Amino acid sequence: MKISMFQASVPPLIRSLNNLAGILEKGAAHTESKALDPSVLINARLFPDMLPLAKQVQIASDVARRGVARLAGMDAPSIEDSETTFPELIKRAKTTVEYLETFTAKQIDGTEEKVISLPVGDDVYKFPGLTYLFYFVQPNVYFHVTTAYDILRHSGVELGKIDYLGQP
Amino acid sequence: MKISMFQASVPPLIRSLNNLAGILEKGAAHTESKALDPSVLINARLFPDMLPLAKQVQIASDVARRGVARLAGMDAPSIEDSETTFPELIKRAKTTVEYLETFTAKQIDGTEEKVISLPVGDDVYKFPGLTYLFYFVQPNVYFHVTTAYDILRHSGVELGKIDYLGQP
Repeated sequence: MKISMFQASVPPLIRSLNNLAGILEKGAAHTESKALDPSVLINARLFPDMLPLAKQVQIASDVARRGVARLAGMDAPSIEDSETTFPELIKRAKTTVEYLETFTAKQIDGTEEKVISLPVGDDVYKFPGLTYLFYFVQPNVYFHVTTAYDILRHSGVELGKIDYLGQP
Repeated sequence: MKISMFQASVPPLIRSLNNLAGILEKGAAHTESKALDPSVLINARLFPDMLPLAKQVQIASDVARRGVARLAGMDAPSIEDSETTFPELIKRAKTTVEYLETFTAKQIDGTEEKVISLPVGDDVYKFPGLTYLFYFVQPNVYFHVTTAYDILRHSGVELGKIDYLGQP
């Protein structure tokens, strides 16, 4: 037995985006219990030239949606980056999960060597599917989910590693 | 063609730990150029009850070393958490890379369903190798590498996403 591109992509990404939704729900609950203006957390950054919480969620969503769609040879539907509240950001994460859930193993399996074109600024990088998944999509999604977690932790939201990893 | 457990584990982890060494080198250079006491960054945290930079590096190293060793049915050599300087933390990351480089595909391939025992406190969790790799080892290593990056960015070190992802 070997593992498949589907096993390595869709289910782990769904799990991470679901965990992100749970992390955001704890952020929302924190602002309510402390009577904080939620926009303070939505716009919170770890450094002035880093991206705020909302953008971390939007990018995690984009990389996951586009990543899986590119492997399947499709264009992911674009989503406008218009979220300004916790319920909207939670919906963004959950909409992403619902989109990922539409993919079947048949669409993703066998894409190990498929050439994936990734537009970056004026350039287009080309990778085999395996490289694209393991060296771009996965680390990138985990980066933005972790940074969303780190922004909320830094803002005083009580989160633990299990919120990020999910229940075993 | 399908992908193998080795392809999904050892090379991506090596890449992430090498990127972590590069991130730490930029942290070291920053403290030198600003004449900062390096221990301020080594002990920096994003919140009082979060772990400091040194511990993020040590855990990334531990999860990667033990993760691959458990798949191979071995015990990873333990490393004392005694690093207090940037050169020592960089060495920790590089030593981890050198250890991971000793593994061959033959040791890791075919471990998708191998039962992995993970001691957590007084409990022992058991996972198939595939679940252990994709739902524990990978997200966990990326979590600690990202948080190391976030701590240094938050402390003013000039880093960009490419330092985390590595050159394409």
